[in-house]
Amino acid sequence: MKLYDYLPSGNGYKARLILAHRGLRYEYVPVDILRAETRTAGFLSRNPNGRIPVLELDDGTHLCESNAILFYLGRDSDLWPVELLDQARVMQWLFFEQYSHEPNIATARFWLGWLKPEPTPYYVETLARKQEAGRAALQVMDTHLAGQPYFVGGHFTIADIALYAYTHVAPEGGFDLMPYPNVRAWLDRVRGQPGHIAMTESPRPT
Amino acid sequence: MKLYDYLPSGNGYKARLILAHRGLRYEYVPVDILRAETRTAGFLSRNPNGRIPVLELDDGTHLCESNAILFYLGRDSDLWPVELLDQARVMQWLFFEQYSHEPNIATARFWLGWLKPEPTPYYVETLARKQEAGRAALQVMDTHLAGQPYFVGGHFTIADIALYAYTHVAPEGGFDLMPYPNVRAWLDRVRGQPGHIAMTESPRPT
Repeated sequence: MKLYDYLPSGNGYKARLILAHRGLRYEYVPVDILRAETRTAGFLSRNPNGRIPVLELDDGTHLCESNAILFYLGRDSDLWPVELLDQARVMQWLFFEQYSHEPNIATARFWLGWLKPEPTPYYVETLARKQEAGRAALQVMDTHLAGQPYFVGGHFTIADIALYAYTHVAPEGGFDLMPYPNVRAWLDRVRGQPGHIAMTESPRPT
Repeated sequence: MKLYDYLPSGNGYKARLILAHRGLRYEYVPVDILRAETRTAGFLSRNPNGRIPVLELDDGTHLCESNAILFYLGRDSDLWPVELLDQARVMQWLFFEQYSHEPNIATARFWLGWLKPEPTPYYVETLARKQEAGRAALQVMDTHLAGQPYFVGGHFTIADIALYAYTHVAPEGGFDLMPYPNVRAWLDRVRGQPGHIAMTESPRPT
């Protein structure tokens, strides 16, 4: 397999993290989104939606969307629950992550740390709204994690990998994690999982 | 089962549509999002993230996120593929829908038809960006549908239900569907499925 990815991306990190947990070998192909390398004809032939990460399978086809990659690489492991309802609850948190969490927390981080747009009224108001919505998402997580170690069924699943990716770097988007003690304790539990790698740790050589 | 829902919502319609396809009976509980009925203590006890649709199961627990509800109600049917890679491709399109399609097309429709915010610089610029990104999403769909009848594996799946919900009402968000002939032909195929119901068709009585 090959992973087309941008190292600072939390979405890419989800793929790198599950590949590490599963001990799978792959070729790492860096793609610089700041240089619009996701908009070239070559990249768009792999993902017409122009986004990393993209997983190239051994048959030459491609799988896109970080949380679909988590499903594909996790389904036949203990990172995916056995019961249908628990599976649906994992899905619920994956969609929460992509709709209520990532567009706020990851985008705020990307703007503050990488894109650094001019502070036009649009960006100033949009950033403020994203930070408010991001805090609401962190509060939903903190409330859910009261009294349970992981998001679904008491076990570490792909829902935890998906939510860890941008939560642990939320301070880079201007989010203070101090008000969310259950989130902070959960981050430590995820970090303590055997096979864990840091976000920008170099992928293992193939 | 009970479905907490707002009838004009495409996310709610996904749940109503799969319940109709599967012939499942349920109690319909209308929730008026314009009157902030998703922000009451009672509703937040069902979904702390304050969004419809919410499916209340017979054991009294709740499942949120429209695409997780599609997975839960579709997995044991021919709306969900057999092969892992096809399942992952269905997931890919579900996440495309919630990240690249719904926040642009559904939000533009909601603002123009329901919320009607003051045309402040923030709303004017954000709406323009959503309409541009929505057109890009429709183009990705149109290209993908060239030469194939449905999104994954040649069969009607929950990916088609998810994408149909807001695509067929995209003109209400200012999107012209004329430039996307493959999308228009696919909309007709989805509409022609046995068991199809219209978006605001009354749910069947229980």
